[in-house]
Amino acid sequence: MAKKINVGMIGYSFMGKAHTFGYKNVGIFYELEALPVMKVLCGRKEEGVSAAAERYGWESYETDWKKLVHRDDIDVVDICTPNNQHHEIVIGTAEAGKNIFCEKPLAKTLDEAKEMLQAVRKAGVKHMIGFNYRTVPAIVLAKRLIDDGKLGDIYHFRGVYLQDWIVDPSVPLSWRLDGEVAGSGPLGDLAAHTVDIARYLLGDITNVVANWKTIIEERPLQAETVKGTGIGDVQAAEETGKVTVEDAVMFLAKFANGALGTFEATRFATGRKNYNAFEVNGSKGSVRFCFEDMNRLEFYSREDDDYAQGWRNILATENVHEFAAAWWPPGHIIGYGETFVNEVYVLLDALAKGQMPTPDFVDGVKCQAILEAVVNSVKSNAWEVVETEF
Amino acid sequence: MAKKINVGMIGYSFMGKAHTFGYKNVGIFYELEALPVMKVLCGRKEEGVSAAAERYGWESYETDWKKLVHRDDIDVVDICTPNNQHHEIVIGTAEAGKNIFCEKPLAKTLDEAKEMLQAVRKAGVKHMIGFNYRTVPAIVLAKRLIDDGKLGDIYHFRGVYLQDWIVDPSVPLSWRLDGEVAGSGPLGDLAAHTVDIARYLLGDITNVVANWKTIIEERPLQAETVKGTGIGDVQAAEETGKVTVEDAVMFLAKFANGALGTFEATRFATGRKNYNAFEVNGSKGSVRFCFEDMNRLEFYSREDDDYAQGWRNILATENVHEFAAAWWPPGHIIGYGETFVNEVYVLLDALAKGQMPTPDFVDGVKCQAILEAVVNSVKSNAWEVVETEF
Amino acid sequence: MAKKINVGMIGYSFMGKAHTFGYKNVGIFYELEALPVMKVLCGRKEEGVSAAAERYGWESYETDWKKLVHRDDIDVVDICTPNNQHHEIVIGTAEAGKNIFCEKPLAKTLDEAKEMLQAVRKAGVKHMIGFNYRTVPAIVLAKRLIDDGKLGDIYHFRGVYLQDWIVDPSVPLSWRLDGEVAGSGPLGDLAAHTVDIARYLLGDITNVVANWKTIIEERPLQAETVKGTGIGDVQAAEETGKVTVEDAVMFLAKFANGALGTFEATRFATGRKNYNAFEVNGSKGSVRFCFEDMNRLEFYSREDDDYAQGWRNILATENVHEFAAAWWPPGHIIGYGETFVNEVYVLLDALAKGQMPTPDFVDGVKCQAILEAVVNSVKSNAWEVVETEF
Amino acid sequence: MAKKINVGMIGYSFMGKAHTFGYKNVGIFYELEALPVMKVLCGRKEEGVSAAAERYGWESYETDWKKLVHRDDIDVVDICTPNNQHHEIVIGTAEAGKNIFCEKPLAKTLDEAKEMLQAVRKAGVKHMIGFNYRTVPAIVLAKRLIDDGKLGDIYHFRGVYLQDWIVDPSVPLSWRLDGEVAGSGPLGDLAAHTVDIARYLLGDITNVVANWKTIIEERPLQAETVKGTGIGDVQAAEETGKVTVEDAVMFLAKFANGALGTFEATRFATGRKNYNAFEVNGSKGSVRFCFEDMNRLEFYSREDDDYAQGWRNILATENVHEFAAAWWPPGHIIGYGETFVNEVYVLLDALAKGQMPTPDFVDGVKCQAILEAVVNSVKSNAWEVVETEF
Repeated sequence: MAKKINVGMIGYSFMGKAHTFGYKNVGIFYELEALPVMKVLCGRKEEGVSAAAERYGWESYETDWKKLVHRDDIDVVDICTPNNQHHEIVIGTAEAGKNIFCEKPLAKTLDEAKEMLQAVRKAGVKHMIGFNYRTVPAIVLAKRLIDDGKLGDIYHFRGVYLQDWIVDPSVPLSWRLDGEVAGSGPLGDLAAHTVDIARYLLGDITNVVANWKTIIEERPLQAETVKGTGIGDVQAAEETGKVTVEDAVMFLAKFANGALGTFEATRFATGRKNYNAFEVNGSKGSVRFCFEDMNRLEFYSREDDDYAQGWRNILATENVHEFAAAWWPPGHIIGYGETFVNEVYVLLDALAKGQMPTPDFVDGVKCQAILEAVVNSVKSNAWEVVETEF
Repeated sequence: MAKKINVGMIGYSFMGKAHTFGYKNVGIFYELEALPVMKVLCGRKEEGVSAAAERYGWESYETDWKKLVHRDDIDVVDICTPNNQHHEIVIGTAEAGKNIFCEKPLAKTLDEAKEMLQAVRKAGVKHMIGFNYRTVPAIVLAKRLIDDGKLGDIYHFRGVYLQDWIVDPSVPLSWRLDGEVAGSGPLGDLAAHTVDIARYLLGDITNVVANWKTIIEERPLQAETVKGTGIGDVQAAEETGKVTVEDAVMFLAKFANGALGTFEATRFATGRKNYNAFEVNGSKGSVRFCFEDMNRLEFYSREDDDYAQGWRNILATENVHEFAAAWWPPGHIIGYGETFVNEVYVLLDALAKGQMPTPDFVDGVKCQAILEAVVNSVKSNAWEVVETEF
Repeated sequence: MAKKINVGMIGYSFMGKAHTFGYKNVGIFYELEALPVMKVLCGRKEEGVSAAAERYGWESYETDWKKLVHRDDIDVVDICTPNNQHHEIVIGTAEAGKNIFCEKPLAKTLDEAKEMLQAVRKAGVKHMIGFNYRTVPAIVLAKRLIDDGKLGDIYHFRGVYLQDWIVDPSVPLSWRLDGEVAGSGPLGDLAAHTVDIARYLLGDITNVVANWKTIIEERPLQAETVKGTGIGDVQAAEETGKVTVEDAVMFLAKFANGALGTFEATRFATGRKNYNAFEVNGSKGSVRFCFEDMNRLEFYSREDDDYAQGWRNILATENVHEFAAAWWPPGHIIGYGETFVNEVYVLLDALAKGQMPTPDFVDGVKCQAILEAVVNSVKSNAWEVVETEF
Repeated sequence: MAKKINVGMIGYSFMGKAHTFGYKNVGIFYELEALPVMKVLCGRKEEGVSAAAERYGWESYETDWKKLVHRDDIDVVDICTPNNQHHEIVIGTAEAGKNIFCEKPLAKTLDEAKEMLQAVRKAGVKHMIGFNYRTVPAIVLAKRLIDDGKLGDIYHFRGVYLQDWIVDPSVPLSWRLDGEVAGSGPLGDLAAHTVDIARYLLGDITNVVANWKTIIEERPLQAETVKGTGIGDVQAAEETGKVTVEDAVMFLAKFANGALGTFEATRFATGRKNYNAFEVNGSKGSVRFCFEDMNRLEFYSREDDDYAQGWRNILATENVHEFAAAWWPPGHIIGYGETFVNEVYVLLDALAKGQMPTPDFVDGVKCQAILEAVVNSVKSNAWEVVETEF
């Protein structure tokens, strides 16, 4: 019989649903020593959280996160709330001595993020941050190719994260468009992922220069509706309010290893749905990835025969690819949800072995430092240096 | 509180794992009236079935399918065994008065399939066959476009199902290469899917002429190993045995509606992993699909402005796409496993409402009739007529 | 100073324009020993042929092909007429002792084709047939990979040639839809190319079984208009006439080397413009090509590292690729017209060296034998044996 | 009989070959009123220029450009020399009263460019600059869609021009790596094209912030070799020299219309051959183009039915597409060379009608102003304002 790890989760909207999917299906990894027990789901609205708990198979629910983090039967707390609650809940959970899995971005500001790192270090708990793209098999393959030297010296990183879900001016103000709650727009929501991927593959970024813009400055407020947990379940009210985050952001970057980077994140790229794409060029080869085709990695090698060099389209669904053996036969692709199953596997595997999972809050803070330098550059109209030691 | 439907499943290998994934996650459909209870998993080897039951979250296990089908606490029996057991188990289950969800192909021969249809009709139980590709949102979209007349009169169906998992001669003989167990090779395993998709989109096939070949005629036997439920968990023994199914099959077809068809299924298409692809051409437009990019449907319309006609690459992940609203935001793709969640949704939704699910055993028999005509054509070296009334 | 080879060309419509493009630009091959002199263009309508001669840079024009083939200043006769004139002109030209470059298909029937081969053999002239796809660098690369053993044993050839230019019923009857002139529809026009490519890559085809259909049986006649040389310059008359060729054809094939083939050619594949595509699967690797992306060859190799196998998209524009060095820097693609420049290079290079060009009339006859077997199979509703010795 | 326009061309390397291809084939445009006469080719090395003149079909050659521009039989002078000679030759040609077709970039600096514009204005001659990408049918289609409002308000321009031809450190120093001759590296060579396309589609750029880098600072000198006119015909010497231009450059931009831009040009993007790609996002739709697939434009429209929105892949080879009717039937693609035929058509059509061709030297100067602001930004580490009135 497998060991059990008891999980409490706070938040049951988009990320709560995704993390739940992770816990429900992680048993598919036969080699995992510990299986999760979905003990308790926490949300502020009883009607919503109780329905979600039944649908998703959580044993119980709470409406006060403080109760949850102090329950004796909880081994790890999973935080899926809006960004502005991360700071308080992480610190409270650390003080309660519970291990923490916190969704990204870690915080609204670098200062907050540093305090959170300090808190988990002080408490000695395990901590992980939800950069789920690190569990995409094709991205792990990119990392392997780079680490094995197949790309040689790295010259370029080119990352975009393009969406279009608010290109229509009638889309109402959600918390993601409210600077008080979200901290930023596509910078923290989307570019944070790209920045983490860049760090995962190339290492630290040292300098940035940036530009951003709020394209549509006023929108309908959001009507209070509770219907499912989907993004599309939001209705517009008659009144309007100010958009207080940027709609698009872009920046140039210099990496510590000498590589040059370009980054862009926008919610106004009509036709791009979840176009989280990057390309890395090196002296021996290149890789390219786009999340809309997340099972594929494109790889070009100058070491192939000269007459037969081309971008290989690798379907990372073979047993030799990270995480893939647990899933389906070759060519039977996985989806977005499965990245959370993989992520939960990483979390539980580390907890079962008493190790720190990866990525942890240090990765969260380092990402936050880059985002903060971007914000500073927008304000200063100049290049900004990124803090890299934590 | 949602109603409950109690499920017993027979078989826990590839398809058992896939169907389990369906039951575990179907709660994601908020509007579903009845949630499944994963009561019992059945398999012949106690060591394997008990481990799988724990990993996958089944409440109990059995080693004798007859016990399972007679348990009082079972509402629906899900049959995921090798093909040669479908006939006996379906008839036994029907006689026990239980609803049936049977994986495809329905049977090894048309005669068997007819008997199974007769049995479920006589018993008055609900029956469904596991053509899971009918729950791929992009394929449902193809159906919608055709039914709405967006393609006009249909001229061509072009379907291939290409894999390469046995191109290496050292791959051992699994039951899928044993004619006694599987009935046929890629014909029943792969072409059955393509044939069902063709029927789903265009209706009946009336005539076929075919060719097939066994490319590698002798292979190592399979060693007895129990490790997980994956396809890759199979080891080669020292002795060899005969391959008794075809390795590749292809046929021309005529549809009742006048359209012309070409079909091919092979396990020797090096580089194609699960390349279940089809194209339909009509007087007004065309569609193309490939399962390796299963979230996408390509659509060409002659009704677009003449200077702007092109193959649209539709990412069927929007709320307006069938099944998609239950899942993730736009552009966050689903995988192979999710087709089983959708399929289980269709099954449970029908059972909850007391309706017959689609596709049912009639679809299974009609598919079998086409496969049988293909076999007959290979033997006769001539065109064969397909039986279409059941 | 380079040697000169004097050219006379018969026909100035689509193929005449294409071959002209070949002669005008062949000087781009610096290593070519002999440059062409565009002596005379021949067409039946003086107004049309004289304008074309000026535009395209031919020194003179004729309206009687017999005069042309007997002119002393002509070294090679290029035949670009409709198919039904090939037989007479080739025999007349051979008797006049001139070298011949004849556009495909060689003839309307196998008997005609055999007579033409006999005539050029008897006359001892050089002869070439216009299968221009053999000069696509990506297809030459496919040949190289196969010949070098990179694909191993060949199992499958899968070829389609899809167009949609007559899907609209108002498109008038051109000579291409008239069986008396064209001999056949997409069989001789399109499948002839696919068949030649299949023979080029895999060798002889020995057996076929086929199906075809005329989808739209009556169309407007074509009004007499002379405006340019383009396909689009054709107007519809008020009267209608019968389509006397097939609109779509498909067949299964067996190759002498044991490979299995599927072929399809249609003018009713809405959205496919010049989709001349094929895939070859072998024990070690595969290749795929589509003319709409004619500078690219896709190549999959099982000899790549197991974690990095994928379809390489090779842009065949490097100096190491056949014909490419004469053109532009890497990534600067060539078009359809350039295949004729390459083809004329092959022709002139052979003539300058006193050698027989490739492909020659034997290739033309062998292709014709396969097309004839397809026609016979449609009539017999059975497999037909292909004649292969000439 | 068509009018004649006499052409003299200076330079016979890469661009000379390309422009020659233009003049030779422009007769394919049946409606063109004036056909070119390829009078004289000019180059400094007699051996090279005389061979090129014969191969390419120029009537005569010169070794002194001043003689050429003063010949009475020349109507238009085509300048294909390295960048540092543009200034002197343009001014000399203008003074000689001849019309000018000058390859891009117009000059090495903005000051030079302004003087050149002044000279042609003073002389009252016609002038055109060689931004050949404006004659790619797919790019003209992008322009049409934007001008017709199909994209709505424009939010984003995202342009990259990626090559890899000097990623190998053994590639010798050509004039393109010599700041004295070329003025800049990929900035003037590649980004100039992207900047012109951006201006063509969106209008003026007002502000930029930039970064660049020389990745490999020392390379073998180039041996003196004369063999053909190809890029690959260059040999390395034993001595080395300094690279005095950047290897990669990237910048953020603001457009006058409020759109946000990102630009990158590099010769170190391994695997990218001539990847001149851009994407434009607007409130109603988007377009994407990549030169490696230059016959295609991708177009997304929010005005399509909601369930059928997708990126259309438009093959711009139909008669309704600009320039396409003169070429081949649908789906028979054109190549890089054909953009010069189209460009020469635009030039001769304007000259025949006594009009100014587009793009002219004003476009050349405006492009230069943006490149100059980029250089200034690299030096200042800050945003720079672009001069836009000329």
